[in-house]
Amino acid sequence: MIERIRSPLDVRAMPPEDLPTLAGEIRDFLVDRVCRSGGHLGPNLGVVELSIALHRVFDSPAEPIMWDTGHQAYVHKLLTGRAAGFDRLRRRGGLSGYPSQAESEHDVIENSHASTALSYADGIAKAARVSGRQPRPVVAVVGDGALTGGMAWEALNNIAASRLPVVVVLNDNGRSYALTIGGLADHLSALRGGRAHRSLFEELGIRYLGPVDGHDIAAVESALRTARESGGPVVVHCLTTKGRGYGHAERHELDRHHAVPVTDPATGRQAAQRRRSWTDVFADEIVRIGAERPDVVAVSAAMVEPAGLHPFQQRFPERLFDVGIAEQHAVTSAAGLALGGLHPVVCVYSTFLTRALDQVLMDVALHRCPVTFVLDRAGVTGDDGPSHNGMWDLSILNVVPGLAMAAPRDGRTLRAALREAVAIDDGPTAIRYPKGAVGPDLPAVDTVNGVDILHRDTDPDVLLVSVGAMADTCVRAARLLSEHGIATTVADPRWIKPVNPALTGLAAGHTLVVTVEDCGRSGGFGSALTLALRDAGVTVPIHCIGLPQRFLDQGLRAEVLEECGLTPQQIVRNVAGTMTRLGTRNHPELEPIGVLAAATMRETLS
Amino acid sequence: MIERIRSPLDVRAMPPEDLPTLAGEIRDFLVDRVCRSGGHLGPNLGVVELSIALHRVFDSPAEPIMWDTGHQAYVHKLLTGRAAGFDRLRRRGGLSGYPSQAESEHDVIENSHASTALSYADGIAKAARVSGRQPRPVVAVVGDGALTGGMAWEALNNIAASRLPVVVVLNDNGRSYALTIGGLADHLSALRGGRAHRSLFEELGIRYLGPVDGHDIAAVESALRTARESGGPVVVHCLTTKGRGYGHAERHELDRHHAVPVTDPATGRQAAQRRRSWTDVFADEIVRIGAERPDVVAVSAAMVEPAGLHPFQQRFPERLFDVGIAEQHAVTSAAGLALGGLHPVVCVYSTFLTRALDQVLMDVALHRCPVTFVLDRAGVTGDDGPSHNGMWDLSILNVVPGLAMAAPRDGRTLRAALREAVAIDDGPTAIRYPKGAVGPDLPAVDTVNGVDILHRDTDPDVLLVSVGAMADTCVRAARLLSEHGIATTVADPRWIKPVNPALTGLAAGHTLVVTVEDCGRSGGFGSALTLALRDAGVTVPIHCIGLPQRFLDQGLRAEVLEECGLTPQQIVRNVAGTMTRLGTRNHPELEPIGVLAAATMRETLS
Repeated sequence: MIERIRSPLDVRAMPPEDLPTLAGEIRDFLVDRVCRSGGHLGPNLGVVELSIALHRVFDSPAEPIMWDTGHQAYVHKLLTGRAAGFDRLRRRGGLSGYPSQAESEHDVIENSHASTALSYADGIAKAARVSGRQPRPVVAVVGDGALTGGMAWEALNNIAASRLPVVVVLNDNGRSYALTIGGLADHLSALRGGRAHRSLFEELGIRYLGPVDGHDIAAVESALRTARESGGPVVVHCLTTKGRGYGHAERHELDRHHAVPVTDPATGRQAAQRRRSWTDVFADEIVRIGAERPDVVAVSAAMVEPAGLHPFQQRFPERLFDVGIAEQHAVTSAAGLALGGLHPVVCVYSTFLTRALDQVLMDVALHRCPVTFVLDRAGVTGDDGPSHNGMWDLSILNVVPGLAMAAPRDGRTLRAALREAVAIDDGPTAIRYPKGAVGPDLPAVDTVNGVDILHRDTDPDVLLVSVGAMADTCVRAARLLSEHGIATTVADPRWIKPVNPALTGLAAGHTLVVTVEDCGRSGGFGSALTLALRDAGVTVPIHCIGLPQRFLDQGLRAEVLEECGLTPQQIVRNVAGTMTRLGTRNHPELEPIGVLAAATMRETLS
Repeated sequence: MIERIRSPLDVRAMPPEDLPTLAGEIRDFLVDRVCRSGGHLGPNLGVVELSIALHRVFDSPAEPIMWDTGHQAYVHKLLTGRAAGFDRLRRRGGLSGYPSQAESEHDVIENSHASTALSYADGIAKAARVSGRQPRPVVAVVGDGALTGGMAWEALNNIAASRLPVVVVLNDNGRSYALTIGGLADHLSALRGGRAHRSLFEELGIRYLGPVDGHDIAAVESALRTARESGGPVVVHCLTTKGRGYGHAERHELDRHHAVPVTDPATGRQAAQRRRSWTDVFADEIVRIGAERPDVVAVSAAMVEPAGLHPFQQRFPERLFDVGIAEQHAVTSAAGLALGGLHPVVCVYSTFLTRALDQVLMDVALHRCPVTFVLDRAGVTGDDGPSHNGMWDLSILNVVPGLAMAAPRDGRTLRAALREAVAIDDGPTAIRYPKGAVGPDLPAVDTVNGVDILHRDTDPDVLLVSVGAMADTCVRAARLLSEHGIATTVADPRWIKPVNPALTGLAAGHTLVVTVEDCGRSGGFGSALTLALRDAGVTVPIHCIGLPQRFLDQGLRAEVLEECGLTPQQIVRNVAGTMTRLGTRNHPELEPIGVLAAATMRETLS
């Protein structure tokens, strides 16, 4: 049946008695395809019936259906004719793991950060009124987990007042990754059990329908039709099970197969991670530190397991605070924990830190609170697409006064940085590291006032300054440069903010400084080093290599890095080209391949 | 009585029958002093009795009292022995207009951005439990306006679950600047009128006490004592009147004298603004644009009047959306308005944009929505202290792909920039301008591919590139430089992102490029121009002058700018010093006075 669906019209035309079969086929399809490619499995298995009912009741795209935290839109993709794309799910040029305007007119918003859909819906509904268009319902599907995010509250407050036909479909599976926390979770639980006096949505002035069994297509359709006809704001409370219909997921208590790597569908066994990840290194070390330092506590915004805090939680349950999908509260409550004499370690994915910049600045840094931010998935993450790359952290944290930031290059320096960070008690610290496997430790051949020297040719021309995990790439590039007769030093300052003054001295002994970082170039480390050199009166030219300041298309991490010019070979050509341009040295055999020029042009046009 | 209060102990020792007299004296004192110096009047007149009751019931600082949006802490300052400081309120070296750790052990948090206090309280209470300390109440005083902010919801969700003794004192005056909006406001109104079924706090699992007349000291004390003894989370709902007891404020419907300039206490008449402000220019032009373009709508986060949107609201009430103190929703609902075919203009103070960086990036820019951000109070604001300076906007918006940003130098270029911005329909735009009076228009002597030339000597050495309102300072500096024989060009690109390629060509004709901006130097315009020059292969040295990357102490705007080296004379010395250092020219009579060196050192140490 799936292959025959070209648009929601085909779903609407099906007789109701065929729908359970369709739902079954969709589940089999999802398990097969997502296990093969990796992707978000549990959330999508939970919304099969809900998605079918939504597309039968609402006339998408005229009545837009928006998926908060877009990873729950796989079924929606199937019902809008995109089954074939699942063969290249989350691959370069393939189907996005999130809604995508380029893929379908049925995809309105592409963002994967949580709790935004209600705000979009409020805006779209208001726009229709201002434009004098016929009022039509606007649908936002939001999880109970995402409702713990403050944006959702801001939106509900406005939706209640506007009286416009916004239909909030509350997909309540009781979880984000793990169990949803807080007073809201208790309240929803009371609503589920018929124990609540009244829903808080009604207290705000929003009509409430439910709870409805989210796996009963007829019941959901009926509630949605009532909501559609109501003409004003409504919450439809649907109860669903994450991982529904796939035993291995339903039984997986940690995260119900929220997001899986390549998996054997028959056994539910996930492809063994061959190498230790950066997250694993952090996970072990924070437990060791926790055992030595009773004042060290951890804060997570609903990401305890993926951010490596599960072992810490097991060992020190009273010192782990999961605050829900609420990065702002995570940061400011950490400031409170610090004022109370503790040293909080706030672990978030790098891409989500942008949610709490104001709190890092005003609540933590202005108060000089000793809070350590651990930024996992920094730099290019790849297959989750543009909204998941951790390419902003370094630039935005560079503006924060008094914050010290480390970018460890390997497991050993990650452990060291974490210990150094929790020992700093007069202001915030941050540590950033990438997604995926950590390579072997990269030893320093020397250390100059805190700057590790990773490679050193005699009589060097070029100082390559490496940021964090780019160290291995830089050492490889240096070896290639040496082969071409360009003598190179590779320096890793480990702590990248404030800029270590030793780098200024080092720079003066070279004819060109080149920085390499996996972050947007605007306001990144290269930018900071440039300012520092100029302020110190060092006039040696500096060239900054990093990610172009644009949204990066999905692809494997290696593919994206290559597209951005961050392979050793590309760095070599870039350096040689820069030297040629500066007249420092002529390397016609190493003419730049235009990577930099292309990146620059894209930035200018972006 | 006021002068005799040295600590809250003195307040606690007073017989209850003396308290109304004390309250009266405090009101007289506030009206007198705040009218004399300018400052936040209305909010503080509203919390006189509440502050007295709080300090009689709770044992500050062991039982900390935190003031959300700290401008409501003047009475608290009086009750903690700081009456004498009001002679130099908000002046350099004088009493801060917000709580200040340096002033008193009774001031725990200094931040003036709204909705944070509950998160701090949650953290402090959790810290006490982790440390095994005797549980003592932690008090957060929050306005009904601040409760519309998402952070407050995130905190309530956690406070409800933690069961710790957090006392939320809801100071409900029905307003932020203007009337509080949304479903929450209706709910609080129902609670006030006894028409609510149950408070939504109770739905979340937080005990609710009230409503209480916030001007009845005995009643407030009684409710607070009950809250203090309860041992768990409680909301105490206090009803207050903004501007209470000062007729001129109580009758001022626009903002109840929220923040006043120097004012005649007898008549309530505010010192006439002598010159037209940047905000006035915007306010007029957006009405004109609104009359021509029915698709232009405005969005405000509870700042309609101070951001200059009152005339637009009067003229086009259905096209003005006040979303509450909710910057995140302001931005993402604007993305929704744009998806619905409109061109929203989101007006926020520059300092509050950090609240919504993620939404600007992911919800607006990733979706290429035509949203215009108008950033009022950009650059140094001065007397509101470190958390109100708009010194981060330029750096953080520089990371946003596809966003174009303008910094107009005068009224004429502000009007032009606004028209240019609303004409751009394929992505976001931003316009930043400072607080205060706008100077006379500064005509260009020439324009080179969109870059205005404001001053041009023959055979120039230095290219001074001015950002926005620094233009006048730069022209003055250029004249001084000319007098000293340093020929100078002053260029104003008006649109500062993306960097206009014409600047690259201009730069090549000079021996030194100097950028001048009233924003933090990290990742600012100078930084962007540096990257652009290097990428274009232009090797002329560039020197970036801007605000040091640290929190700036309060003072008059001119004082702060001088402290940061942004006067014409200081720029001249800085430029001459740089030329000497570079060996470009020797000007011993213009040796740098160490401004830059000092700023750099502070940044390195910060």
